[in-house]
Amino acid sequence: SFFIASIQSGDYVGFTFFIGSMAMMAATVFFFFQTTQVEGKWRDSMLVAGLITFIAAVHYFYMRDFWAETGTSPTELRYIDWILTVPLMCVEFFLILRAVGATQSLLWKLIFYSLLMLVAGYIGEAVDRDNSILWGTISTIGYVGILYEAWFGSARKLAENSNDPKLLGAIKALGWFVFAGWAIYPIGYMTIPGGFLDGLLAPESLDLFYNIGDAINKIGFGLVIYALAISKSDKVN
Amino acid sequence: SFFIASIQSGDYVGFTFFIGSMAMMAATVFFFFQTTQVEGKWRDSMLVAGLITFIAAVHYFYMRDFWAETGTSPTELRYIDWILTVPLMCVEFFLILRAVGATQSLLWKLIFYSLLMLVAGYIGEAVDRDNSILWGTISTIGYVGILYEAWFGSARKLAENSNDPKLLGAIKALGWFVFAGWAIYPIGYMTIPGGFLDGLLAPESLDLFYNIGDAINKIGFGLVIYALAISKSDKVN
Ligand SMILES: CC1=C(/C=C/C(C)=C/C=C/C(C)=C/C=O)C(C)(C)CCC1
Ligand SMILES: CC1=C(/C=C/C(C)=C/C=C/C(C)=C/C=O)C(C)(C)CCC1
Repeated sequence: SFFIASIQSGDYVGFTFFIGSMAMMAATVFFFFQTTQVEGKWRDSMLVAGLITFIAAVHYFYMRDFWAETGTSPTELRYIDWILTVPLMCVEFFLILRAVGATQSLLWKLIFYSLLMLVAGYIGEAVDRDNSILWGTISTIGYVGILYEAWFGSARKLAENSNDPKLLGAIKALGWFVFAGWAIYPIGYMTIPGGFLDGLLAPESLDLFYNIGDAINKIGFGLVIYALAISKSDKVN
Repeated sequence: SFFIASIQSGDYVGFTFFIGSMAMMAATVFFFFQTTQVEGKWRDSMLVAGLITFIAAVHYFYMRDFWAETGTSPTELRYIDWILTVPLMCVEFFLILRAVGATQSLLWKLIFYSLLMLVAGYIGEAVDRDNSILWGTISTIGYVGILYEAWFGSARKLAENSNDPKLLGAIKALGWFVFAGWAIYPIGYMTIPGGFLDGLLAPESLDLFYNIGDAINKIGFGLVIYALAISKSDKVN
């Protein structure tokens, strides 16, 4: 079977594809299960957390095999995954702030920024590599937009005005994920030939960075929200 | 494995088949889960919304692979999908109006129109392309029938007489889906060689249009009904 060949000793990128796929699957089961453990309005948050890792799990199985067979980056699958999961992460953000007054305009703003970030990133990686620095810069505008919302914009203000230290703590934690966790991706992107880190890191480190980033961000984001939801549900019961 | 070939850089139709399949799967999990969150009579609505995306998810996996292997339109699979899902969307319409007095005759009228629309459309696309304009016109009669029901006919009147602004709002939103979202399909159809948009758009844009239309309509329709169901269930709980 073609599966047997897929892990070779020393193929660290392959390792992370493999670990990623199983970690996403396990996280999915965990988050879906928690929908029955948390109180009312937190259920949707846990459900969306599970949908994010579920979508990623399926894509990781495909990406793992793509990598095993071709030894090249599954760029298309990667961006197909992100185009679904990053907007869902914006939904996560919105859902936990809805109760303290977040409007849909916040959600659309975040989704707009993430689409800008991803579409420009894809063009830079796959369509117009010669101008990958230009596209990376455009993409970074979207990234900075999300970062701004999470740290200083209306999302942060809503949390600060909520008088709810748990909620504020969760928004702060998510802000750190967006700052430190998401920064892993542009660093990986800079290893593209011609990029700022070209030569410093092997080309295949791109996928290593992206895989580590995905595991931290998709699962970590969900766990932060899970911790918030559980602490809130305790209060009620 | 045959999968590897399926996504090539720049194959945007392939992208939308791929994104469509995962989006439909995730939406299915979401809608099925919501059957446990909404109140009594709304459960069937969420279940049907999930069945629509479930049927579509399976067909999208097949269509995705068909496209990847042949590079041609999976016309048969497309109409097989629609012949199941469009009548189920009529059921959705009927279900939310049942409580305010919709009779089965409304349901059968809508189903009749949609079968006329789809059978004529299939003949025009696959059996008798030489007369695709004639068949498209016949198909449009069915489409206009549904449109009329949603905007001016008994469906709209029932909602208006219900004195229920939320229900009326949902019926209006679904009306917009049928008007603007469903119009994507005949536009795609007109890109068929010999059609009104032939030459203006590349032939493969047919599938691009259909894929975007399906994602908007199948998931969007369900989300409108979900929003209605949740707002109604809050009231009760
Ligand atoms: C800024 C920037 C990028 C940012 C990508 C990010 C931030 C992706 C986040 C993905 C997540 C959070 C997925 C996990 O679910 C790109 C596209 C690499 C292109 C270079 C510039
Ligand atoms: C009017 C018209 C058409 C309309 C198709 C429609 C309106 C399909 C809707 C499908 C949906 C809503 C599926 C989503 O679940 C055809 C057949 C392309 C043929 C040309 C004329």
